Amino acid sequence: MKNEIKVFCPATIANISCGFDVLGLALDAVGDEMVVRKTAQKGIRIVQLTGQDLPMETHQNVAGVAGLALLAESDYDGGFDIEIYKKIKAGSGIGSSAASSTGAVWAMNQLLNKPFSNLELVKFAMEGERLASGVAHADNVAPALFGGFTLVRSYEPLDIVKIPNPEELYATVIHPQIEVKTSDSRRILKTTISLEDGIKQWGNVGGLIAGLFTNDYELIGRSLVDHIVEPIRSILIPGFDKVKEEAINAGALGCGISGSGPSIFALSKGAQTAQEVADAMRKVYQKIGIEYDIHVSKINAEGIREI
Amino acid sequence: MKNEIKVFCPATIANISCGFDVLGLALDAVGDEMVVRKTAQKGIRIVQLTGQDLPMETHQNVAGVAGLALLAESDYDGGFDIEIYKKIKAGSGIGSSAASSTGAVWAMNQLLNKPFSNLELVKFAMEGERLASGVAHADNVAPALFGGFTLVRSYEPLDIVKIPNPEELYATVIHPQIEVKTSDSRRILKTTISLEDGIKQWGNVGGLIAGLFTNDYELIGRSLVDHIVEPIRSILIPGFDKVKEEAINAGALGCGISGSGPSIFALSKGAQTAQEVADAMRKVYQKIGIEYDIHVSKINAEGIREI
Repeated sequence: MKNEIKVFCPATIANISCGFDVLGLALDAVGDEMVVRKTAQKGIRIVQLTGQDLPMETHQNVAGVAGLALLAESDYDGGFDIEIYKKIKAGSGIGSSAASSTGAVWAMNQLLNKPFSNLELVKFAMEGERLASGVAHADNVAPALFGGFTLVRSYEPLDIVKIPNPEELYATVIHPQIEVKTSDSRRILKTTISLEDGIKQWGNVGGLIAGLFTNDYELIGRSLVDHIVEPIRSILIPGFDKVKEEAINAGALGCGISGSGPSIFALSKGAQTAQEVADAMRKVYQKIGIEYDIHVSKINAEGIREI
Repeated sequence: MKNEIKVFCPATIANISCGFDVLGLALDAVGDEMVVRKTAQKGIRIVQLTGQDLPMETHQNVAGVAGLALLAESDYDGGFDIEIYKKIKAGSGIGSSAASSTGAVWAMNQLLNKPFSNLELVKFAMEGERLASGVAHADNVAPALFGGFTLVRSYEPLDIVKIPNPEELYATVIHPQIEVKTSDSRRILKTTISLEDGIKQWGNVGGLIAGLFTNDYELIGRSLVDHIVEPIRSILIPGFDKVKEEAINAGALGCGISGSGPSIFALSKGAQTAQEVADAMRKVYQKIGIEYDIHVSKINAEGIREI
């Protein structure tokens, strides 16, 4: 059995428009790399961390905490050393913490000969999310582990449904270099919504899922609407409305806030359109004068993988 | 070209649990029959109506009103005579008015050599619904016309998505002989809901649609939950909680209110389980001493049809 594994941990988009808190997807062109190694010494150690200024102390690191959650349920009596090579910026809204948490537990599970199901790995990785944001949410860790689109149907009990991704569906994600705290973007949400908006939202969730199953890009586009969260949260993201308008004009099927922002995602049919959407989004921030990162990626159908 | 056609107009279940106002399905074992005949005389006449005490004056009859909506968009310069043989009880909550409205316009479209799409027919039939309930809703007429499960994703513009129905999915519907006015069951609904309940609801809609596409009966069952409307409306239906409990105990995947009630539906895998669910539901109303009708039906995949 192997003692060491190197993995690619994909960035993810959560809160896909109408699918607030339930729908996420995994990216292919953006992600961290991690090396995980079995050790005779018990416990988890973060032995290397590059690319981001993040704590290396096991209990302060999301990969450490997720790994400890796995160890607590395992009969393995050794430990693991973890090297983390961050490519995803923390706070960008494309699942930086989820990539590290899932990378750790997925790699460990491989090295232990897969005693745990993907659903169990989600639960361990959610402990990393609890450390990162105070809430043990699954909407980034689920797509990172399962790949494609994932639906978190329920938390009690945890129920995750993998949804297929049409072959030609591409994501464009732009990250304006501004800080939006998850706590702020959560706080400004209203705790009640109108029944009327609710009905529109679950109609669109139904349409989006149906479109993903039938490769109906037009239906996917018509369903990528958020009547509830986007109108409120987008206020925290300078230029959001213009970026969205230009993305749609450039051919995107839909456009919305990635996670709790500030990244903005668009979905398009075909790599070329996704690239043209990227150009259109880029121009908006160039004009405003805000620095940005931008990614164009196909949907990652398998999720996290060995490299 | 034919001058006369006889059609079967299926009963339908709207407001399928989490899919309040958006998800409906068509039944196969319950429905009205109608005969529609071309006439040289312009306009629509209801020339026969049996089974229910309903108005025969064209402008007061849902089939008449729906038919007039079609005629207004057609270049046909004749008219139609309509015979309606009602088997579905008005006010039972399984789409009695929708069956008549859709039957009329579907039959006319056949006799005119299909100038209109199903989506256009839905719009005409919705005028019948407007007459029946004051609201031009589509959640019964859509499954009656398209068959299977249908999602009304949006009203503006009208967007209807046909969802496949797993082969072995059966419905049991019990109609307790009590009157619940649609206006009452609408009035008691709250106009706002909690964001938390909304998220659960659209998670379940996503799960239900995914389950229908993948023939995952367990997922369908887990998703047949309504956190928003059923807890309120079920108060108007004597014995609802007991009927639901016994249906689930008898093996139903899920159970909820059909339309705005008072009918209660359950979905089951296989005809035999659906029959056992019927027996269990029946016993509850026998014990309470409320008269009832009960139907067991496979899902009607094609919708309305010539007979």
